[in-house]
Amino acid sequence: MSKVLRIDAERYWQSVEASGEIGPGRPGGLARVALSDADREMRNLFVQWCEAAECAVTIDRVGNIFARRAGTDLDAPPVVIGSHLDTQVNGGKYDGIVGVLAGLEIVRTLNDLGRSTRRPIEIVSWTNEEGARFSPPMIASGAFAGVFDTAWVLARADDDGRLLGAELERIGYAGGAEVGGRPLDAYFELHIEQGPILDSGRVDVGIVTGGYATHGFVFEVKGETAHTGPWPMDKRRNALVGAAMLAVAVNDIGWRYHATEGKATAARLVAWPNKPGILSDWAQLTCDVRHAEPRIAERMVAELFAAVDDCVQRSRCEIRLMNRWEFGNEWFDPDCIGLLRDAARNLGVPALDVRSQAGHDAYYISKVAPTAMIFTPCVDGITHNNNETAELARTKAGVNVLFNAVVARANR
Amino acid sequence: MSKVLRIDAERYWQSVEASGEIGPGRPGGLARVALSDADREMRNLFVQWCEAAECAVTIDRVGNIFARRAGTDLDAPPVVIGSHLDTQVNGGKYDGIVGVLAGLEIVRTLNDLGRSTRRPIEIVSWTNEEGARFSPPMIASGAFAGVFDTAWVLARADDDGRLLGAELERIGYAGGAEVGGRPLDAYFELHIEQGPILDSGRVDVGIVTGGYATHGFVFEVKGETAHTGPWPMDKRRNALVGAAMLAVAVNDIGWRYHATEGKATAARLVAWPNKPGILSDWAQLTCDVRHAEPRIAERMVAELFAAVDDCVQRSRCEIRLMNRWEFGNEWFDPDCIGLLRDAARNLGVPALDVRSQAGHDAYYISKVAPTAMIFTPCVDGITHNNNETAELARTKAGVNVLFNAVVARANR
Repeated sequence: MSKVLRIDAERYWQSVEASGEIGPGRPGGLARVALSDADREMRNLFVQWCEAAECAVTIDRVGNIFARRAGTDLDAPPVVIGSHLDTQVNGGKYDGIVGVLAGLEIVRTLNDLGRSTRRPIEIVSWTNEEGARFSPPMIASGAFAGVFDTAWVLARADDDGRLLGAELERIGYAGGAEVGGRPLDAYFELHIEQGPILDSGRVDVGIVTGGYATHGFVFEVKGETAHTGPWPMDKRRNALVGAAMLAVAVNDIGWRYHATEGKATAARLVAWPNKPGILSDWAQLTCDVRHAEPRIAERMVAELFAAVDDCVQRSRCEIRLMNRWEFGNEWFDPDCIGLLRDAARNLGVPALDVRSQAGHDAYYISKVAPTAMIFTPCVDGITHNNNETAELARTKAGVNVLFNAVVARANR
Repeated sequence: MSKVLRIDAERYWQSVEASGEIGPGRPGGLARVALSDADREMRNLFVQWCEAAECAVTIDRVGNIFARRAGTDLDAPPVVIGSHLDTQVNGGKYDGIVGVLAGLEIVRTLNDLGRSTRRPIEIVSWTNEEGARFSPPMIASGAFAGVFDTAWVLARADDDGRLLGAELERIGYAGGAEVGGRPLDAYFELHIEQGPILDSGRVDVGIVTGGYATHGFVFEVKGETAHTGPWPMDKRRNALVGAAMLAVAVNDIGWRYHATEGKATAARLVAWPNKPGILSDWAQLTCDVRHAEPRIAERMVAELFAAVDDCVQRSRCEIRLMNRWEFGNEWFDPDCIGLLRDAARNLGVPALDVRSQAGHDAYYISKVAPTAMIFTPCVDGITHNNNETAELARTKAGVNVLFNAVVARANR
């Protein structure tokens, strides 16, 4: 094999644009959160597309969708291409979506060419990657990799108390397949960069060598209700204030590591009763810290726990860690990265090694299969925002790199 | 007239206890927020009780309920006794309620005695005193006093976007009477103290000379959504962080004035999208500052606005004042206070002059009528909490003081 393969770029982008009509959010964006009616509509369309491409579709118990194109070796584990089709509540039309549909387009093009591979090729769409509805993010690829227990995943509740498992049933995507527990030959994921490096550098392909070490946390704050008037300051245990103190402290930690591109985020704060006239007796804060250097990320975590102690003293509330997760420590597989570099070279496409600062399903899957990732540009690095923009002209090179690497791996 | 009057204490407390069954909240408490189904049920019972006591009931356009016992002088403006029947979401069974039902019991006892008064006596229950559902608090007594425009009051929305006017219609309490605009001879309100002074001092009656100057605010914070991972700290405009900074700053202001019993409260913080993985682009903070000295309260307000500027700088968000209110600057009427003191003396009941640190409908009504307030004890000063406790043995003295003062005023 010598000649390089190229997808049908127009058809690929038509699919991306069709997806962009489902679950509209703010102008230009999507609000297609996991297991919503819009997510069901997108899943149905995706399954229909996969079946039209003669793939065998299976759904596992956490709603991950796998579409398999058979290989000539019936016993060989598959090469898997995937990402996610859910979005944030103020999300864009490309985050995750360009990766899943790249897998679909690769299969369609192979069909057009009448070309078989030794190993099967599977496309996967992972459930609830964003974590916008059910916490934590990447929950279903984590379950596939054995990081999260399936029963625990199905019991996660959204803000309205609806359970992930019940919502899967409701939209018809509570599948019968066991979660994980089968070998994958390799996993490849293409994703928009969600940062400005490729866009500002005028490079269309990023080869992701690894991630930022990321530690996520949910803290619960307990105080006591009382009157906002007569109750003396030194008797108050206002859980809202305890959580606000911690939110500010988290943000301060991010600034302390800004010079080395560290990040710390207070993302979500809820309180009860959270009403005028009464102090709150309960609050919850979801936050995370990230750094390229795992040891520095650990230091940020230590500072966070020191800040918790300080906020307990100052607010007179109890603060308890309810849940934590981590990802991004992983380094991707040298063989798979090598295949991406070879493909870029053969295609004559400039490529840049980059580190991912976001969470991706690929991190969890790298625990159970050789894994690599490609980044493609998004304008100004803007993402998780209705102004997120990606262009076919700067995306298709990455998809072609993915295509050639996947086929090389599948024929190995 | 020489002999002192006394209510039927047992009957009074039976009514308080019957109210305590309607709209149960956490164990021992109530969650009877304004214009809820539970509020309707309580209003219906109250109207039924008033009609059984031969009062003429009228409802005004903001849902305030007036029950009038006629006087012998048909043209004389009434002496009004009132408070509120709504509660916080984690409220007690006494806050507001003991005051409205004291008015009812006074009318019932006058009926039993076959005793008429020159002026009419009116009992009033004001709508949404707590402000737990619709902001600001004391909105309907404020409308009665001309502080708030009736149309503006009817257009206030709760957290779910339901309007005060529509909810009044829904529960059948959108009355036909104009709001205010008629003379009151005097207004008396009995309320639990919501502070520890009477309880710890073993004094059963507080004569409220005035309030704490209180300034309430709603601030809106505007930022921009972005990814919690790659987006650099120095580009972030996380509205949740801006609001959290302001919440902490408000609390700090309270501590700076703690030595002179000042208070500052961050009571409510909401943000959007307020989800893991994404920075919030909108938040809102409801807060207030209070001090016995109006000039010091003004200084606290100045510090709050300085803190807003500081939070704008540090968070890179816009912060805009959406709404503000004030109350508690008022001093109550010397003649009405004199009647309360006379009544306490005649009854042989020790009474203490106190200042109120909470908001009360009496503040607004004092703008349009001679007004005074009585406080009765609550255990440890605990309120806005399901553990709020008041006892008949320590409440009835205050009701009898109220009774004698009201009758003296009504016969003047």
